[in-house]
Amino acid sequence: MAQKPNIPKGTRDFSPQEMRQRNYIFDTIRSVFSLHGFLPIETPAMENLSTLMGKYGEEGDKLLFKILNSGDFLEQVDLQQGEYKKITTQISEKGLRYDLTVPFARYVVQHQNEICFPFKRYQIQAVWRADRPQKGRYREFFQCDVDVIGSNSLLNEVELVSMIDEVFKALDIRVQVKLNNRKILYGIAQSIACEKNMIDITVAIDKLDKIGLDKVNEELLSKGLPQKAVEALQPILLLEGSFEDKIAQLSIFLASSPEGLKGIEEIKEMFANLAILPLSCAYELDLTLARGLNYYTGAIFEVKALDAQMGSICGGGRYDDLTGIFGLKGVSGVGVSFGADRIFDVLNELNKFPLDIFSGSQVLFVNFGKAEQSYCLPIVNAIREKGIAAELYPDAAKLQKQLSYANAHKIPFVVLVGEEELKTEKFMLKDMNQGEQTLVSAEELIEKLQK
Amino acid sequence: MAQKPNIPKGTRDFSPQEMRQRNYIFDTIRSVFSLHGFLPIETPAMENLSTLMGKYGEEGDKLLFKILNSGDFLEQVDLQQGEYKKITTQISEKGLRYDLTVPFARYVVQHQNEICFPFKRYQIQAVWRADRPQKGRYREFFQCDVDVIGSNSLLNEVELVSMIDEVFKALDIRVQVKLNNRKILYGIAQSIACEKNMIDITVAIDKLDKIGLDKVNEELLSKGLPQKAVEALQPILLLEGSFEDKIAQLSIFLASSPEGLKGIEEIKEMFANLAILPLSCAYELDLTLARGLNYYTGAIFEVKALDAQMGSICGGGRYDDLTGIFGLKGVSGVGVSFGADRIFDVLNELNKFPLDIFSGSQVLFVNFGKAEQSYCLPIVNAIREKGIAAELYPDAAKLQKQLSYANAHKIPFVVLVGEEELKTEKFMLKDMNQGEQTLVSAEELIEKLQK
Repeated sequence: MAQKPNIPKGTRDFSPQEMRQRNYIFDTIRSVFSLHGFLPIETPAMENLSTLMGKYGEEGDKLLFKILNSGDFLEQVDLQQGEYKKITTQISEKGLRYDLTVPFARYVVQHQNEICFPFKRYQIQAVWRADRPQKGRYREFFQCDVDVIGSNSLLNEVELVSMIDEVFKALDIRVQVKLNNRKILYGIAQSIACEKNMIDITVAIDKLDKIGLDKVNEELLSKGLPQKAVEALQPILLLEGSFEDKIAQLSIFLASSPEGLKGIEEIKEMFANLAILPLSCAYELDLTLARGLNYYTGAIFEVKALDAQMGSICGGGRYDDLTGIFGLKGVSGVGVSFGADRIFDVLNELNKFPLDIFSGSQVLFVNFGKAEQSYCLPIVNAIREKGIAAELYPDAAKLQKQLSYANAHKIPFVVLVGEEELKTEKFMLKDMNQGEQTLVSAEELIEKLQK
Repeated sequence: MAQKPNIPKGTRDFSPQEMRQRNYIFDTIRSVFSLHGFLPIETPAMENLSTLMGKYGEEGDKLLFKILNSGDFLEQVDLQQGEYKKITTQISEKGLRYDLTVPFARYVVQHQNEICFPFKRYQIQAVWRADRPQKGRYREFFQCDVDVIGSNSLLNEVELVSMIDEVFKALDIRVQVKLNNRKILYGIAQSIACEKNMIDITVAIDKLDKIGLDKVNEELLSKGLPQKAVEALQPILLLEGSFEDKIAQLSIFLASSPEGLKGIEEIKEMFANLAILPLSCAYELDLTLARGLNYYTGAIFEVKALDAQMGSICGGGRYDDLTGIFGLKGVSGVGVSFGADRIFDVLNELNKFPLDIFSGSQVLFVNFGKAEQSYCLPIVNAIREKGIAAELYPDAAKLQKQLSYANAHKIPFVVLVGEEELKTEKFMLKDMNQGEQTLVSAEELIEKLQK
């Protein structure tokens, strides 16, 4: 009657090897965040559905994992209603976190009196979406969000780019950071007298890379933009050259839009400060960068790996009223999210995981029986007290099996203490990489392992 | 129309301060686990309900958080059935992890061909239970489990006690480790010819501390034990003296029970090996230790803090057939679970969190305006490159506000670079603890911060 064990589709187990790879990514990101004074928070996996619903659009509402109320959840429910959406709200009050942004906004409002603003926080946690699973898309995946809330300064944008640079430099991934500003996008719409179509225009611009200029123009017309407006927009779609060139052309195009000119001022200030820093990454203004989310109000960021076929591995922007939905108005925030799963895939593809993250204990003591194990026990303990990871094989199994264990776990040294060694108080030290064996004293052993 | 933000009852947000305290506990535990060659794994928050149901008793089934199927979950459901339990299984296929033990058993069976046994794994993750929330009991809480699976050796038990000792020594919590063996408990039941009542007897013994001898005897009679058997059991309930004394008395009591004698052999071997190690903690044989769970078959562990009013802060045991439910027979395991939330409370109560875990960045550069901030930006960057956490306040806010930020975040040094300092290329360094101010060069500044 044994069950065949499996896990829900779109979810994953993480083996020790995968855990080390993931921890390497998370630890790298975390140490950069800490170096910049960002502080960690965590929020519960479950949020009230009233917190989550309506924040991610109609599609998002559908993709929320909802939790059945405990006990007799049907007690108060009129099942004759039949319609599942209506019944959902009656039998489920909680859902799983869909991203880290809405829970963060909720956190800031709920704890506003305990927080000293500007609040520089990071959060590394799982999120859940009932999306159709496919390659590289999971129903449980991990986000690393870093945000500053309560400061309008563009220094925050500069600091985020600086952190992006440090993270990917530390991970040895060459990246390009694409930057844009939502105010410029608005200014563009305003300049062709199509403010109402700003979302359509930005969505279309965002597709330029994928579907090409003709299809973008078609889409704009189909959204109701006049032919003249689409024509007027062409210089923007065809914008090329250096940052200074683009800014010069944009300043002319946006001359009649105060908001657009504000956007240009902002991006100029950002670039001026970025130029002061010794950044390793390439960065550029990219007007086709719009990103799907509609709450950005200023800077927009996106990061791509230069040497791997992969979408965005990090992205974000400034949002001026995220906490407004929870009753705290006028608090501006800016942040980015690192895509841990995609970064994992990039590191794998480029073979960039450092080898030393895979090594296990430094030494394994072979177990030859009860007398030998009792002799070895305090020695293994003394080695650990020096901070060296050490193991004593628990069973007096065949030597071959014990050595296989050392190999499987990439343990570089094995110590054999048999009857002879017991008498002479010497240890046979086997170097698993070189294959050579040497007889050493306890002090020599510890010295060797500390190297 | 703003919502008043809150979170589901029994769940918690963790502030930066709480995160640091929790990370201090997790990092300490993790580093001890690693030193002993244990490897991390993680499993998904959601498991199939078929994996979880029936593993925690009827009460446990009720306390599982169940996840509503996506889409129109009512499509295939006959609502006329009316009974919510029947409908539950039709509208919900997944549940949230209830502990780390069952997912681990599922993991071992599912990945048995990739695992090199003995498998020494640890797992630190949240679990969820729809329990009634109360002080110290949460609906989302964290377990730190460490187990060895695929080895019968009692060395594993010894290693677990050794790790318990190291963890609590590192956390500076004085503990007592209580040890027992389920085989002895079975032997006791066998010796009074009440094998069928072993669970009743162990449950009653477990209550000895709480309800006293008379009530325990009453309970045993009410469970159907003959008066004679209860009388015969008294020497066990009254057992006292040193470990050797107890073992001597037990050996006589259990003379006719092979299983009981096996238990005595096991506990003797464990104690003999523990005696070799330089342990800091007190440990003792405690026959009243039975623990609720019925799957233990050998050693049983429980840890209590000596200086705090708190239940068990760590516990576990050996289980001979955990993976059998998933089709892998004859694999023995032994492990313990550290109660992170209770350890947190104990450290708080005893005021044992180290002060240095609360310090934020090492230095804050005050922001006096755009010219000054551009000047400071690369210097702050250079300080970070030395591995020193440093911040530049993002806004040119009032000095008082910026200094309050430094105080709130326990930043020990503040650097003031105003017009004068810009000219002289000197920095005014303010020691926030001592209050003193000194004028330093860039090199002197970095030197000072590195201390």
